[in-house]
Amino acid sequence: MKRTEGKRNMANRIIKLSAAIVAAASAVGKYEYEGPLGDTFDLHDSTDKFGMKTWEKAESEMQRLAFNTALAKASVSEREVEALFAGDLLNQCVGSSYGLLDFDIPYFGLYGACSTAAESLMLAAMTCGAGYVSSCAAVTSSHYCAAERQYRTPIEYGAQRSPTAQWTVTGAGAFLVGRDGRVRLTEALPGIVVEKGINDASNMGAAMAPAAADTLLRYFRQSDTSPEEFDLIVTGDLGFEGGSILCELLLAEGLDIRSRYNDCGMMIYDRERQDMHAGGSGCGCSAVVLASHLLPRLERGELRQILFVGTGAMMSPSSIQQGLAIPGIAHLLRLEREKEMMR
Amino acid sequence: MKRTEGKRNMANRIIKLSAAIVAAASAVGKYEYEGPLGDTFDLHDSTDKFGMKTWEKAESEMQRLAFNTALAKASVSEREVEALFAGDLLNQCVGSSYGLLDFDIPYFGLYGACSTAAESLMLAAMTCGAGYVSSCAAVTSSHYCAAERQYRTPIEYGAQRSPTAQWTVTGAGAFLVGRDGRVRLTEALPGIVVEKGINDASNMGAAMAPAAADTLLRYFRQSDTSPEEFDLIVTGDLGFEGGSILCELLLAEGLDIRSRYNDCGMMIYDRERQDMHAGGSGCGCSAVVLASHLLPRLERGELRQILFVGTGAMMSPSSIQQGLAIPGIAHLLRLEREKEMMR
Repeated sequence: MKRTEGKRNMANRIIKLSAAIVAAASAVGKYEYEGPLGDTFDLHDSTDKFGMKTWEKAESEMQRLAFNTALAKASVSEREVEALFAGDLLNQCVGSSYGLLDFDIPYFGLYGACSTAAESLMLAAMTCGAGYVSSCAAVTSSHYCAAERQYRTPIEYGAQRSPTAQWTVTGAGAFLVGRDGRVRLTEALPGIVVEKGINDASNMGAAMAPAAADTLLRYFRQSDTSPEEFDLIVTGDLGFEGGSILCELLLAEGLDIRSRYNDCGMMIYDRERQDMHAGGSGCGCSAVVLASHLLPRLERGELRQILFVGTGAMMSPSSIQQGLAIPGIAHLLRLEREKEMMR
Repeated sequence: MKRTEGKRNMANRIIKLSAAIVAAASAVGKYEYEGPLGDTFDLHDSTDKFGMKTWEKAESEMQRLAFNTALAKASVSEREVEALFAGDLLNQCVGSSYGLLDFDIPYFGLYGACSTAAESLMLAAMTCGAGYVSSCAAVTSSHYCAAERQYRTPIEYGAQRSPTAQWTVTGAGAFLVGRDGRVRLTEALPGIVVEKGINDASNMGAAMAPAAADTLLRYFRQSDTSPEEFDLIVTGDLGFEGGSILCELLLAEGLDIRSRYNDCGMMIYDRERQDMHAGGSGCGCSAVVLASHLLPRLERGELRQILFVGTGAMMSPSSIQQGLAIPGIAHLLRLEREKEMMR
């Protein structure tokens, strides 16, 4: 177990960003389309195959489609995008390297497990905000069937799922990041790897919750804000199990976020009707919920400012087999709707 | 095959950097220590185990040792390092997530296959140069035995190696990046994913060479420089096979780098005495050669400016099994010895 008590690194701090999300798009599978946010996603395929012969190729195809759709929405050509920040859950991140192969754009491959949507947006905003590029993109994905056979067992085996297990979202989200736009990325607090002894790969929410608590505590201690100032504090994929652990961990530290808290993994499926156990997970989970549900609400002014906390469980099947506990990470972004008077 | 002809993206451009390598350290295994650069590495373990029970844990331990050694060399405490950029070849990059778990430092996980040393240094330099942090680090690794059983077959099977196969370097390199230092990172050109139909996982040099050619051609077309202005143009791990393909590809485009060219994968082992077939490869290859051989030569003024091109082959065992060709990438960094008069 990681011992961070008493040696808190005070050097790490909130990074001020100056960038905006110019456009976003999503592609999802059957269950995501049938869920409560189904109408909001740009593309879906009820076969989960997107015309491909393998689940891995389907995941790549979702990335390609989501990025192309984001380009089309913003009327931006591929030539104007100067960098791609991309990642996924597949071994060696082949969802991204093959999915974005057709594009003639400098490529930064990332691996932050399910936190990659937030990590990629953060690095895109940092790169753009610093003026290194004027336009770049963040693209991430996950696929239920590809993830199951890689991390657990092929779905054909019909393995029993535990109540704390989460359902990897079949989906890809793409974000174009530039300097101007209605939804601004104003602050980032990158996550620190936290491991609290959880070694049950069917309970990733519990493994990631301490990392989310660590990041949120650091954020509220460093910033002059309270949870009530945000319309929403949303984690990526803690699910019902991890989400409630997060709220408890924070309450024990005197921080109550419950009135503002939600989780993309709790939002994407209908708990009663779809029975996805502890909720959605995966890089695609937070990516598609942010791209197609939260961003439009920010654009319409229904949400004015939110904290988006991408959560990731960075184990591998080998590390679990070798008896190691699961390291979690949580990257925080502050998103704000640009005020009308500032336009 | 990727068709880039005729649609060259002119938006991608050389990024000007303002950062320096403050300190670097390396940890390597038996064959690396026995190679021509053996004396230059900081730490080595002739069992390749570093006191651990599995190869994967040994890889993590090398990262931890290399990073700790770099901190010690610079007399910098963990608290002063504001971000880690790290990655490796293991599934889900567990070499890094577990190796750096003890450190209470914000963590950006990367996956650029063997190009991750250059990718991590590039993002560290961009982040530091923009003023987001004043000090950060780039840490990468690979381990021969862990890589063999993941990508090919466990070494216990005694599989026959093909002449074009490369030997994954057992090693980890860590770099501290700050604003001031004698070896400056002055330019970056991130790589574009290039795939030219090579699907032989035992010939990764051939798969990566077109990506390296693409990046170097873009660099020399955009910059007002010629190969002769550099003391060294060094690729990460093309090996003897990929290195000669690179030189041929560039000659066909009218660019002759042969008088300045070398490759970390050609330098790390003794071709006659050690017989590592086509040379070294892996994230650790370019990381340890840069950290312990090239950087000291830059510091001593034996080299004044070099181009360091990290090369990566971004396939997975699944993508190869599914008949896909190998996408390559090459990230370029320009390193310069600060001129005495400027100090």
